Amino acid sequence: MGFGISGVYCATVTPLNADLSPDLQRLGAHCHNLIADGCHGIALLGTTGEANSFSVAERKTILEGALAAGITPEQLAPGVGVAAIPDTVELTRHALSLGISRVVMLPPFYYKGVSDDGIFAAYAGIIEAVADPRLKLILYHIPQTSAVPLSRPLVTRLIAAFPGIVGLKDSSGDYGNMQGLVEDNPGFAVMVGADPLLLPFLKIGGAGCITATSNLAARALRTIYDHHADPARASEVDAAQGRIEAARAMLNSYGQIPTIKAVLAERDGDDGWSRVRPPLMPFAADKLGELSERVAALPAL
Amino acid sequence: MGFGISGVYCATVTPLNADLSPDLQRLGAHCHNLIADGCHGIALLGTTGEANSFSVAERKTILEGALAAGITPEQLAPGVGVAAIPDTVELTRHALSLGISRVVMLPPFYYKGVSDDGIFAAYAGIIEAVADPRLKLILYHIPQTSAVPLSRPLVTRLIAAFPGIVGLKDSSGDYGNMQGLVEDNPGFAVMVGADPLLLPFLKIGGAGCITATSNLAARALRTIYDHHADPARASEVDAAQGRIEAARAMLNSYGQIPTIKAVLAERDGDDGWSRVRPPLMPFAADKLGELSERVAALPAL
Repeated sequence: MGFGISGVYCATVTPLNADLSPDLQRLGAHCHNLIADGCHGIALLGTTGEANSFSVAERKTILEGALAAGITPEQLAPGVGVAAIPDTVELTRHALSLGISRVVMLPPFYYKGVSDDGIFAAYAGIIEAVADPRLKLILYHIPQTSAVPLSRPLVTRLIAAFPGIVGLKDSSGDYGNMQGLVEDNPGFAVMVGADPLLLPFLKIGGAGCITATSNLAARALRTIYDHHADPARASEVDAAQGRIEAARAMLNSYGQIPTIKAVLAERDGDDGWSRVRPPLMPFAADKLGELSERVAALPAL
Repeated sequence: MGFGISGVYCATVTPLNADLSPDLQRLGAHCHNLIADGCHGIALLGTTGEANSFSVAERKTILEGALAAGITPEQLAPGVGVAAIPDTVELTRHALSLGISRVVMLPPFYYKGVSDDGIFAAYAGIIEAVADPRLKLILYHIPQTSAVPLSRPLVTRLIAAFPGIVGLKDSSGDYGNMQGLVEDNPGFAVMVGADPLLLPFLKIGGAGCITATSNLAARALRTIYDHHADPARASEVDAAQGRIEAARAMLNSYGQIPTIKAVLAERDGDDGWSRVRPPLMPFAADKLGELSERVAALPAL
């Protein structure tokens, strides 16, 4: 397809030690599981990975830890966008210095109601300061969390100005917006953040997905990515879609990040997986039984 | 009064050099002007100061710059709250290491819709990690920007758990909320962020203000703080209130931060004052004439 990024990327959760520092050993193992389950890549340090709860130094450690565990630079698309532009520049340069060219970049997210001109100036300043032709920048539109939306006209303007901007992760859940982005910008890689939309979105020119549910349902997403256009495998694709929809509904009914971690804790028999950094809270202990039943009831792939 | 913080504090803007680095010389001079105009203190590195557009290292430099310019530790109440708890801890420890005990602390602000338990855990984790009995923590409630409100029950719970929490800056503009905070928590310092509310708020037990407009109207605010209860000076207080209301209306009609900087640029004949960091944009050049007329028309004190 020639997209700057495509396929199934996992917005991986970040396991923590008892002191809430990142647990690089558990993280490396989880990344390998995700690749084995069919992920093309790992979107380390995204919203699901609690990226903005870590300092710049911790984020570097996490990224280096994934590489040290044997995940390749080509398999990684880390989040680098923070509130302060100098930090975003530093994180982007750090990723590039490790041979990682694809990064996912939030706009500065402290001020709300800022203008398209202001967001354009922010991205322009970052790209000019990074000044590296290897950069493949993926914009990150997640208005329900960042509260700083990237409008369609702004995206078109950014793409026209900076060839290094190769894609956008749209986590808004707004299918019309994703469709519009694809129509506005031929060849530009739009990655969907809402797993159940991967199937219809691939059919209209979507490039793939970067999702939280893939922590638990990577194989189903890969099945859809590989076989969505093959009528002979429709029943397999339908089964995958059923599993994804059920897993996503389960996560959303409790809160995605603590729930993913609680499911992994049970799967691995490892309570440590349950830890989150404040302001998030761990999965409620009194609902663990119910969660366990819902996991067992998920449709098989 | 025994409040942990009281009086008129200016949420100062941060002047920038041509490369958008902080201009410590202009900043020091501005802080001295503010003190000379009647401010009891300087709330450096707040929302108005574009704090979250600076890296941790830059924030330290700015704080050290104010001290080097001769502002005393007792006159400073810097912002230290960022998205990542380790950085908030580092900034708080840094302020304390310089002899500054009062800090204004946003909750972690990336995740939205987090629980009161989660915000409580965040503040608890920070206070326990800082582990310094000198700390005088001022909570920061600015839901229109942080998008992470601090509820009244949460504030009461935090005060009960941590004696180091001595105040709260309420920038919501919701007078009922400020009144409720004062009623809920006798002796606790609630500082109003909306300048025109200082006058009524002092009469019901408010401790003072931390405001953006004080960059331009510090003397008027000080007049109100000092004389609000003196019937013999009612006309002076009324005049001050008129000036504050007009200045605030002017700022809000254009956008506070770029407008304050544009007014200071004109006052000092120094275009450099106009610079802001993206995602903010400088004051629109084609409206400078109009702004100049509005400044000239502000009621005299």
